[in-house]
Amino acid sequence: MRIQQSEVSGWFKSLQEVICSELEKADSTGKFISDEWIRPGGGGGLTRIIRKGQVIEKGGVNFSAVHGESPEFLKNQFSISKAIDFFATGISIVIHPVNPFVPIIHMNTRYFEMGDHAWFGGGIDLTPHYIKKEDAHFFHSELKKMCDRFHADYYPEFKKEADDYFFLPHRNETRGVGGIFFDKLAEKNEITMAYRFDFVKATGESFLPMYLELINRNKEEKYSESNSKWQRLRRGRYVEFNLIYDKGTKFGLETSGRTESILMSLPPVVEWEYDFIPEQGSQEFETLRLLRKGIDWTKNENV
Amino acid sequence: MRIQQSEVSGWFKSLQEVICSELEKADSTGKFISDEWIRPGGGGGLTRIIRKGQVIEKGGVNFSAVHGESPEFLKNQFSISKAIDFFATGISIVIHPVNPFVPIIHMNTRYFEMGDHAWFGGGIDLTPHYIKKEDAHFFHSELKKMCDRFHADYYPEFKKEADDYFFLPHRNETRGVGGIFFDKLAEKNEITMAYRFDFVKATGESFLPMYLELINRNKEEKYSESNSKWQRLRRGRYVEFNLIYDKGTKFGLETSGRTESILMSLPPVVEWEYDFIPEQGSQEFETLRLLRKGIDWTKNENV
Repeated sequence: MRIQQSEVSGWFKSLQEVICSELEKADSTGKFISDEWIRPGGGGGLTRIIRKGQVIEKGGVNFSAVHGESPEFLKNQFSISKAIDFFATGISIVIHPVNPFVPIIHMNTRYFEMGDHAWFGGGIDLTPHYIKKEDAHFFHSELKKMCDRFHADYYPEFKKEADDYFFLPHRNETRGVGGIFFDKLAEKNEITMAYRFDFVKATGESFLPMYLELINRNKEEKYSESNSKWQRLRRGRYVEFNLIYDKGTKFGLETSGRTESILMSLPPVVEWEYDFIPEQGSQEFETLRLLRKGIDWTKNENV
Repeated sequence: MRIQQSEVSGWFKSLQEVICSELEKADSTGKFISDEWIRPGGGGGLTRIIRKGQVIEKGGVNFSAVHGESPEFLKNQFSISKAIDFFATGISIVIHPVNPFVPIIHMNTRYFEMGDHAWFGGGIDLTPHYIKKEDAHFFHSELKKMCDRFHADYYPEFKKEADDYFFLPHRNETRGVGGIFFDKLAEKNEITMAYRFDFVKATGESFLPMYLELINRNKEEKYSESNSKWQRLRRGRYVEFNLIYDKGTKFGLETSGRTESILMSLPPVVEWEYDFIPEQGSQEFETLRLLRKGIDWTKNENV
């Protein structure tokens, strides 16, 4: 049975509200601005942006609910050739913190309908500028607990999907320590749409407790200009991923989405330095070593 | 009749040498470093990088001559399905100046062979952070004079091709004031390969006199932190173009080129600010107004 479109979009919108309000409290000085926008082809959204806070240098929490004629590349996925309408609603978050020891976080959950097809997608992943094993362990353990409440296959499957998706082939690096990602929430026969929606809700609700904990753990850590420079270089990789590979960005730009809302994910200040290679044995070097697929962070072994 | 591969690659390499040496003189303190690299699939190149000079904040002049099995997307262009080797040689330049009133410049000329096909491509284009009409007029007038020596169609055709190519649909902006661009140098029957090579040489040789003049005109101009901020924002657009649309970048990454040499084009320090809109009537506002296709800069009219 189908979920009501308004039920899903309403839930995403209320999640946006809660997340912005709690992030403001955590930041203490930063405030979200609100930009409501209308999509000429149908629907619209509400973009919320926080800038130059104590903790968050730039963050965006975007809600949208759009509909209209399906773009070609979406129809191709289902071998549909006739004109057909789509509906998509989702929430998308990217937070770029001030302190290089606080990780970048990204979450996106979404719901699509096109003709007979209806599916959820999304995920949540962490991009530390400096990988701390205990933080990666915490993040993945929390995600595993959450997933395990729904299906034993979810964590291992979606963890692998995140490793494969958040990967930069031209750098041979993962974007960060991954997380979970489900492009189309697996259509296991016995699992109803309502149950899938519950899983998507649980994913969305996992954001705040995990990220607030990671902020609190790291926001007071002292850092040097060289730490900040490394942060700007790692943000460069974030830009490379989002502009070259990210499907959400591609989908947004190809469906004539609102450019500023799509590209709110881009970091505030970024650097590219030719052939920057960190010193062997440095924290930066160690981070690079850990930017690879297939690490079981729930084990917290010496990796 | 075919041109010798070594004749073309030798010419590009000597152009690289001259350009680096003259840019060093113009910069006065910056020096190019040299990185020779080998492509695992065949061939290699020489990447030359200048950093933190007086005039140039970051610049790259890359030479390459690579060969091996043709990638799919290249074969598709000629509807070739069997395995076939390709050869490609070229020189590619991007200069990011310190002073926001000195424009970014890009030049790329290249020669390809695949089976029965052999063609030249390339172009040169200017991306001012602040558009000065007299500079755009100078640049286009010089290019037109150069083109007119070869064929009356060249300037109008290749100017339009540059306008169409260096365009960001998601911003509805051209990247800069354009220049000339020829993806495949038009195969007019009466024009020999030797003549085409002469035109490519003339394009390459036009780089130094034009850019040195533009440096000299603008390098002493006073600028404020707000000018530099605008420069970093415009560099953001440069990154968007190169990572989302540029075919050279795509070709490089898809043929497993050397990542650091391909991405040397990315600016040193970049900013993205959500929904930055310059004040009406400001220099920045005026620049945005002029970032559109179809302006005849050779006329230097009030546009």
